[in-house]
Amino acid sequence: MAASVLTLLTDFGLQDTYVGVMKGIILQVNPQLTVIDLTHQIPAQDVASARFALSTAVPYFPRGTVHLVVVDPGVGTQRRAIALALGDDLANPTAFVVGPDNGCLSGVLEQYPLLTAVELTHPHYWRTPNPSSTFHGRDIFAPVAAHLASGVPLAEVGAPVAADTLVTLPLPGCTVLPDTGKGVGFRGGVQAVDSFGNVVTTISGQPVIGKQWHCCVGDRKLSGGSTYGDAAAGEALALVGSHGWVEIAINQGNAYQQIGIDWRQPIEVWITG
Amino acid sequence: MAASVLTLLTDFGLQDTYVGVMKGIILQVNPQLTVIDLTHQIPAQDVASARFALSTAVPYFPRGTVHLVVVDPGVGTQRRAIALALGDDLANPTAFVVGPDNGCLSGVLEQYPLLTAVELTHPHYWRTPNPSSTFHGRDIFAPVAAHLASGVPLAEVGAPVAADTLVTLPLPGCTVLPDTGKGVGFRGGVQAVDSFGNVVTTISGQPVIGKQWHCCVGDRKLSGGSTYGDAAAGEALALVGSHGWVEIAINQGNAYQQIGIDWRQPIEVWITG
Amino acid sequence: MAASVLTLLTDFGLQDTYVGVMKGIILQVNPQLTVIDLTHQIPAQDVASARFALSTAVPYFPRGTVHLVVVDPGVGTQRRAIALALGDDLANPTAFVVGPDNGCLSGVLEQYPLLTAVELTHPHYWRTPNPSSTFHGRDIFAPVAAHLASGVPLAEVGAPVAADTLVTLPLPGCTVLPDTGKGVGFRGGVQAVDSFGNVVTTISGQPVIGKQWHCCVGDRKLSGGSTYGDAAAGEALALVGSHGWVEIAINQGNAYQQIGIDWRQPIEVWITG
Repeated sequence: MAASVLTLLTDFGLQDTYVGVMKGIILQVNPQLTVIDLTHQIPAQDVASARFALSTAVPYFPRGTVHLVVVDPGVGTQRRAIALALGDDLANPTAFVVGPDNGCLSGVLEQYPLLTAVELTHPHYWRTPNPSSTFHGRDIFAPVAAHLASGVPLAEVGAPVAADTLVTLPLPGCTVLPDTGKGVGFRGGVQAVDSFGNVVTTISGQPVIGKQWHCCVGDRKLSGGSTYGDAAAGEALALVGSHGWVEIAINQGNAYQQIGIDWRQPIEVWITG
Repeated sequence: MAASVLTLLTDFGLQDTYVGVMKGIILQVNPQLTVIDLTHQIPAQDVASARFALSTAVPYFPRGTVHLVVVDPGVGTQRRAIALALGDDLANPTAFVVGPDNGCLSGVLEQYPLLTAVELTHPHYWRTPNPSSTFHGRDIFAPVAAHLASGVPLAEVGAPVAADTLVTLPLPGCTVLPDTGKGVGFRGGVQAVDSFGNVVTTISGQPVIGKQWHCCVGDRKLSGGSTYGDAAAGEALALVGSHGWVEIAINQGNAYQQIGIDWRQPIEVWITG
Repeated sequence: MAASVLTLLTDFGLQDTYVGVMKGIILQVNPQLTVIDLTHQIPAQDVASARFALSTAVPYFPRGTVHLVVVDPGVGTQRRAIALALGDDLANPTAFVVGPDNGCLSGVLEQYPLLTAVELTHPHYWRTPNPSSTFHGRDIFAPVAAHLASGVPLAEVGAPVAADTLVTLPLPGCTVLPDTGKGVGFRGGVQAVDSFGNVVTTISGQPVIGKQWHCCVGDRKLSGGSTYGDAAAGEALALVGSHGWVEIAINQGNAYQQIGIDWRQPIEVWITG
C-alpha cells in the first residue's frame, strides 16, 4: 500500500509529549504513514480557531489525506467522536476528517460535500477498549485516523450519523448590500485573526480581484490593495489574503491590535470601479 | 531493512537550527529512518523534566524504537554518554534509550527491566573522532542513535557499564499510610507539572479507579473525579491522568499556579468507599 | 527514485497553518520526500537571521538536499525568486537552496562554490500560474523545491542569473591585527545571537584551538575556554562554538543580555601562548 498522509491539529502545544505520544500510536498502527503537523498552538479549547485552521489547510493536501483534529473541551463527556468522508466520489474521497463533534470540523463541511459521517463506536480500532477519559486523542482518535489512512473503510470504524445532527459553528454571514449607486457592496464579519494580527473576514475576495475597491471597518476606510507593500510601513490596508478571503492588515504591523477590531464588528467591502 | 523509528527529546527549543542539524546527521546515517519529536521545550538543563517526559512517551512507541535525550548540562565534562536496551527480550528489546548519564534516562529504568547498558566509547559511530565540546547531540548522540535504529547492535557502539553505576534521579516515594479506620491512604509527592498546570503526583491511579476517593494537598481536600468536567469551570479536582498517575487539576484553569502547590509538598490520596 | 530530503526555514511561526500548507503542497508533488524543519521562528522578516540559520545547517545534511528559505519581506514586489546549486560537482551538487533573492541565501554562498543560479520563471513548476501575491511559499517556492528534490534539473525551473547580480548581506569582516609583540590578534564583529544568548562572532575558531587565548569585548577581557563549564556558573567566557566561530557565552546565563553586547561592537581575539 502506498504511503498515506495524516495531519494533526491540536491545542496541546509543543511543551509536553502529548503530540509525540499520538505519533507513536499512529506509527504502531502503520509505520509507513507520513504524519504532518498543521499546528498544535490552537488556543486551549478554542473550537472556532480549530475550525478555521483546518479549513485553511485541507485544500492543499493530497487526495485522500486524513486530517485529525483534537481540540476537545468535552473530552470524557457525552460529545460524539466522529469521522467524515468529504468530496464528490465515494470511492475516492477528497479528504477524511476525524475529531470531536463540537463544530471544529464544520468549516470543511462548508467547503466540500459530505459523503459519509460515522460515530467512532468500534473499539476494535481504538488503542484500548477502556480509553482514558482525558486523552481520547491517544486512545481513540489517533488509532482510528491511522487505520483510515491505512485504507480501512470509513464504515468499519463506526456507526452512521445523520448529516443534520452534526454540530456546526455558524459564522457571521456575508450579504450583498442594497444598490445605492455607490458601487457594489458586501457586509460580512470577522472569521479569524492570524498570528501576525491579520484579520480574516467572511467576505470572499473573488469579486474584488482586478477592481478598484475599499473596505470599511468602524469609521475607517481602508484602500483595497493586492499585497502588504501597497501600504507604507505601519499603514493599514485591505487585501485578498492567501486563504482567498478579504483580509485587513497593517504593513509590518498588527492590524487586530493596532486598529482595535472587535470580533463582533461588521465589515463592509465596496467595489467602485 | 524496515524503516525504524527514532525520537528526539531536548531542551534546544525550536528557534535555532540545533534540532534540524541533528536530523540532518541522522538522515546522513540512514535516510529511511522516521524521526519523531517528543518535545524540544524541556526547560534549559532541567534533567528532572526530561526524565518525566521520556517516561510518559516510551510506552506508546513501536517495539525497538530508539529514544534520544539531549538535556545535558554536563556536556564537555566527564559525565558519561550512554545507551541502554530495555525490556525482557535481549533479541528484541522493547526500547533503546540514548543520552547523557545524568538521570534523564532513570525514569524508564523504573518502568522496564534493563537488558544492557553501554558507554558510547566507539568513535567509529560518531560524526567525527574530534567532537565539539558543546554539541555532543550532533557529533556523538545523534549518529549513534541513528546507527542503533538502523540495526547496529548495542554492544558495537560502546563498552559495558554496570547497572548499579548509572545515575538516578530519585522521586518522592509513595507510601501506604497507617490504617486509622478512615479508609486506605497513600502519601506521595509531586512528580511533574505539565504545560496546562496539571500537577502529576507520584501516587499511582490504579487503586482509586471505580472507588470513592479524595486528595489532600495542604489544607485543601479535593474530590476524586474521572475527567476535568467533573468539576465546575474554575474548580479544582483530583483525577487519574492519562499517564496513569493521580493528578491535581482545575477545570479550564492552572492548578499549579492557582492552588500554589510547592514541589516539595506531600500529597495524600484517601479511598473511602 | 530514492527518497530525497527537503528542509524548510521560515519566519511563519508554528501557530498558523502556513507551514503545514507548504508541506501539503510538497507531498502533492512527491509523497516520498522527507521534509525537515530547520526553524520557523526566525524573527518576522529578519533576513540576516535567516542567512545565519541556513549557513549553520546546510553542512550537516545529505548531499543533494534542497533547502527552502521563505523569509520574504518583499513578497509580491519585484524581488526575484531564485534557486542555486552549490558545490564543486555540477552533476552532483552538495546542496540546492531556494528562496527570495534578498540576501537570505548569501551565507551559504560564502561556504560553497556556486555552480548555477536561476530565477524561478517557469510557472509549469508552480502550484498555479496565478500565484497569491502574499504567499509565494505555497504557490511558487514549495512546489519548485519539491520538484528539485524529486530530480528535476535546476535549469528546468527557471532562467539563468548572473552570479554577480545576487543580493548579498555583508557581515563585519575579520582582520588580523598589527603585530605589537602581544600575540596574534584578530578583530571581527557580531554575526548572530542564538536563543540561549550566546553571541556568535565573525572570528573563526580554527586558530585558537589548543592555544592560550582570550577575547576582548568593550573593556571586558574574557578567558578562552573550550566548554561552558570552564567558567563558574554565571561567569562569562569565550569558546569555539559548535558552528566553528568564536562565541561569547555565560555559563548557565545569557551573554547577550547580561554583558550588554551591541551588534555593531568590534570584538577582538588574542592568542598569547
